[in-house]
Amino acid sequence: MKLFFDDRQTAHAPSRELHNGDWVPYAENIERPRSIVEAFTDWQPVRDFGMAPLLAVHDAYYIAFLERAHRDWIAAGRNGDAIGYTFPIRRRRPLGFGRIDADLGAYSYDAGTPIAAGTWESAYWSAQCALSALDELTGSDARHAFALCRPPGHHAGRDYMGGYCYLNNAAIAAREAHSRGLGPVAILDIDYHHGNGTQDIFYEDRDVFFASIHADPRTDYPFYWGHADERGEGAGEGTTLNLPLPRGTDGQSYAPALDTALAAISDWGAKFLILSFGADTHSSDPISSFALERADYVELAGRIASLGVPTLIVMEGGYAVGDLGKNVAAFLSGFQA
Amino acid sequence: MKLFFDDRQTAHAPSRELHNGDWVPYAENIERPRSIVEAFTDWQPVRDFGMAPLLAVHDAYYIAFLERAHRDWIAAGRNGDAIGYTFPIRRRRPLGFGRIDADLGAYSYDAGTPIAAGTWESAYWSAQCALSALDELTGSDARHAFALCRPPGHHAGRDYMGGYCYLNNAAIAAREAHSRGLGPVAILDIDYHHGNGTQDIFYEDRDVFFASIHADPRTDYPFYWGHADERGEGAGEGTTLNLPLPRGTDGQSYAPALDTALAAISDWGAKFLILSFGADTHSSDPISSFALERADYVELAGRIASLGVPTLIVMEGGYAVGDLGKNVAAFLSGFQA
Ligand SMILES: [Zn+2]
Ligand SMILES: [Zn+2]
Repeated sequence: MKLFFDDRQTAHAPSRELHNGDWVPYAENIERPRSIVEAFTDWQPVRDFGMAPLLAVHDAYYIAFLERAHRDWIAAGRNGDAIGYTFPIRRRRPLGFGRIDADLGAYSYDAGTPIAAGTWESAYWSAQCALSALDELTGSDARHAFALCRPPGHHAGRDYMGGYCYLNNAAIAAREAHSRGLGPVAILDIDYHHGNGTQDIFYEDRDVFFASIHADPRTDYPFYWGHADERGEGAGEGTTLNLPLPRGTDGQSYAPALDTALAAISDWGAKFLILSFGADTHSSDPISSFALERADYVELAGRIASLGVPTLIVMEGGYAVGDLGKNVAAFLSGFQA
Repeated sequence: MKLFFDDRQTAHAPSRELHNGDWVPYAENIERPRSIVEAFTDWQPVRDFGMAPLLAVHDAYYIAFLERAHRDWIAAGRNGDAIGYTFPIRRRRPLGFGRIDADLGAYSYDAGTPIAAGTWESAYWSAQCALSALDELTGSDARHAFALCRPPGHHAGRDYMGGYCYLNNAAIAAREAHSRGLGPVAILDIDYHHGNGTQDIFYEDRDVFFASIHADPRTDYPFYWGHADERGEGAGEGTTLNLPLPRGTDGQSYAPALDTALAAISDWGAKFLILSFGADTHSSDPISSFALERADYVELAGRIASLGVPTLIVMEGGYAVGDLGKNVAAFLSGFQA
């Protein structure tokens, strides 16, 4: 399996985030991709597919905001990471502002996703990383490819960032795969956290099936999305499947949910799979509460591979830096068994 | 004019708020009501009208949250003020949670409205303060009464807090005035900031007319509400009037907006007025950018009094603690001229 990464994805280095009422060190740090890069010897270069695939998912005004936000923050006399403090929970709509704080809240849903000087550069190349891996699966015999996307993407919506995510790499790849006629396309999200951004992007869309297995949002971020009764709307009715699991879930109790998701994806007739993979389901993850072990990753990957469709694996979360590279390597090895 | 206040309104004393990307001392501090209390010699006791008038505006699950939030915060092992960090900007709906952080975000729209140990006690008595002043205007010859509500209320919605506000004192008084047959009831909000909570509560409601004069939300909090094109919806279509003004507005340029609002209220046939008064329009206010002077307050109050309807004046913001009592006294004097 070919692996993709670009060093510009480490330009993004915020120092802190607001979590549980106070500042904590930024968990989505550059040690994460370094741990994964070191676990493999051979990496493919990321190519530049330009803005069009990004604009097929995200609004132009949101992308323009991401590009300029940190400059505007500095121009307003602020220091450090840009962060919002007020959020449009009612009657949200596009509005033009004359203040960076208004923009930051307008285009996010949490106070834990800061914009630093290198954020746009890394977000851009993280999306290109997914597209490069997708390209590897287009018109070739390759069945699997891995995009070390960082920053991750699955919490980012059409016009908002959140949960360490700015551009939705999986959604961008899914739209592009659909455009290239590789579909029907399904996204399976097995990060510890619900992929609320991805869900939202395709919620009223019948083109892409979205399934997510994640910690119950009644206790875990992102709280407001990922509940079992969320099944899509309008044309997308029935194309969203949420399988929340309780804290403490181990490999044995995870497997049936995975089988349910895979059966739904298969029944829907998916011919191409985007896998949002987070290693924050591991027992050692410092911000999560599942109990999967490294051996479980090999086993779960084998089940996913048995779907028998070309699969683009996109990196999402995973914060146990010491184990991260080995956990990702174990997971990817399950596709090559 | 009789003045109402209760000492329990100072139990609420958070230490800090998130503003422009970092912690700052909590601006809505207990020096504010003290400054106003000291500017007058005679205060009336606040009576207890119970929960029913509060529940006529706010959802029971939101009130239950306000009562228990700080206990839950401490039980979760946290210190200091309870504050949210994730907010339901999409598909917001009632959900049950098993984590205080989820609750805090579910019932707020900013990271700047902390819940401290005494918050519920003060919010409750602040609402009772408005009801006590309203009672003074019921079945008596009194034409004006002043409720020193603190914490303020106009940013609080049916089921959310925000902008230093927990219970919407003006809305609670307006509903109660309507129930007592004192209407048609209008609310005029002349705080520096848009009264988004009040607007939201009555947005689809034809019973209460809401007019607000405030700093343009394109540059000033609360950013997402208070734009001139927000005019109410459904049955409430046309019963909301927003008059945003630019930073730097002085008494001379404020007066025409006030005349516009008063004419609309008069045309609507209001027989009872609730006035959300914020002294943060004063030139010395540390967090605001209008340029009204003390003499302007006397003049503006005179214009409002000329409407000729019974008027309950409810305190909202105003953060220039040194000038606050004198500014409020000047404003109230304009009603007695
Ligand atoms: Zn995650
Ligand atoms: Zn104000």
